Amino acid sequence: MAGTDHRQSAGADEGAVMPVGPAIILVRPQLGENIGTAARAMLNCGLSTLRLVAPRDGWPNPKALNAASGADEVIGGAELYPDVASAVADLNRVYATTARPRELIKRVIAPREAAAEQIGGVGQGERIGVLFGAERTGLSNDELGHADAIIEVPLNPGFASLNLAQAVLIVAYEWRMAALGPVEGRLPLGTTVPATKSEIEAFLRTLNAALDAREFFPTPEMRPTMVQNLRALVERLVPTQQEIQTLFGVVKALQRPPGPRKPGGSG
Amino acid sequence: MAGTDHRQSAGADEGAVMPVGPAIILVRPQLGENIGTAARAMLNCGLSTLRLVAPRDGWPNPKALNAASGADEVIGGAELYPDVASAVADLNRVYATTARPRELIKRVIAPREAAAEQIGGVGQGERIGVLFGAERTGLSNDELGHADAIIEVPLNPGFASLNLAQAVLIVAYEWRMAALGPVEGRLPLGTTVPATKSEIEAFLRTLNAALDAREFFPTPEMRPTMVQNLRALVERLVPTQQEIQTLFGVVKALQRPPGPRKPGGSG
Repeated sequence: MAGTDHRQSAGADEGAVMPVGPAIILVRPQLGENIGTAARAMLNCGLSTLRLVAPRDGWPNPKALNAASGADEVIGGAELYPDVASAVADLNRVYATTARPRELIKRVIAPREAAAEQIGGVGQGERIGVLFGAERTGLSNDELGHADAIIEVPLNPGFASLNLAQAVLIVAYEWRMAALGPVEGRLPLGTTVPATKSEIEAFLRTLNAALDAREFFPTPEMRPTMVQNLRALVERLVPTQQEIQTLFGVVKALQRPPGPRKPGGSG
Repeated sequence: MAGTDHRQSAGADEGAVMPVGPAIILVRPQLGENIGTAARAMLNCGLSTLRLVAPRDGWPNPKALNAASGADEVIGGAELYPDVASAVADLNRVYATTARPRELIKRVIAPREAAAEQIGGVGQGERIGVLFGAERTGLSNDELGHADAIIEVPLNPGFASLNLAQAVLIVAYEWRMAALGPVEGRLPLGTTVPATKSEIEAFLRTLNAALDAREFFPTPEMRPTMVQNLRALVERLVPTQQEIQTLFGVVKALQRPPGPRKPGGSG
């Protein structure tokens, strides 16, 4: 799924309309590659605030930059903290991701619900962060204690282990979808436009006349229903003007005897 | 985010309640690693039908199995096809993922809308598939021609390139969320239960009496409002019985002079 539009600078996004998203806080991440792929997933979704708590292999880490596939601004702007308490000190609301049930009594919500809350919080001027634990060990109960709620992705309970970048992707993707609001489907038409009703009508008249001439309709009684069905089929296409022209050509061509087109002939 | 519950067999999922999801069709995938990580993302979301169209490095591919991190059944069950036409021949509805605008006139929808359609189709007995193009080149226009609609993830337009497994994850995740329906937040309480209103009341009486004795309330007129605020604070906690006991202990302890607890004393 390659698809960056290079006419826009990386990470620019719709800065004017998208609210400032949550900080992504990686706690004791082990592999630089995972920091990099997490940064890429963040920027894919328009997030750019990355905080690192005690990354195992130090910082900066060239492997992270390499794995970020161009999300250099996220890696370059990463902030380093010694522990979770300092990483969340300036935040108003903190979420923690984990799939492990803990003994702590803390609200557990899905990423979609979390994103909706985050949008609400940001709208009230809150600063928000999401904690992600180390690759193998997750977050400690002490670290979880800093969170207001736990985000749990409702995955296949028999196979629920996500890698770090994928966990970040889902949280960041839900944030983006919540920030964008409903995304309407569309039918890109390029340089042509949808056919007008009268163009569709003209095509159907031509088609039906050609079919009448060839006795396509078994009986006069059956004709109206069959004509209705053909109309429904063509209308369902929502054809463009260009496509209606193509269909005219198809009907015309089918009426000719096989063989090369005669010069100067009717079709 | 480690979190597989090993009491359940991998991939078992809630077979009885989850409908059969779409086939994931990887078209000319290049790296075995990407096939493996895509398989893992599928199984995370309860999907297990993987189709491969002309994988570059042949099949089976040990690198795919290795990268699947345990999604062996998906890799082992992968079906091989020579081209897109044969891979979609038995399907009723086909989606294609791409971030590249093409000249084809074809409906473009977001993953969430696609998942809602897929749920509807499956409910009517349809077989559904989603095409993912090769890592660098995507899908050709010929291949896109087999799709009923294009799925476009509404990512940051300045940085929209997802890797293969992440594209699969988002499509599969949206399928799963649509299949599950709304996921309610919850507050796991472990072995304790929420306190009753009378337990909360008893605690507030104890607290207010202790505060009265220490002249916490500046004036009698201000007392009712301050008491109300304290009540609102405690109610907002939705405390468990255990927590109410802890709070009783805290208030009791604060009333003692500092130092070791006297044996046989009141605290």
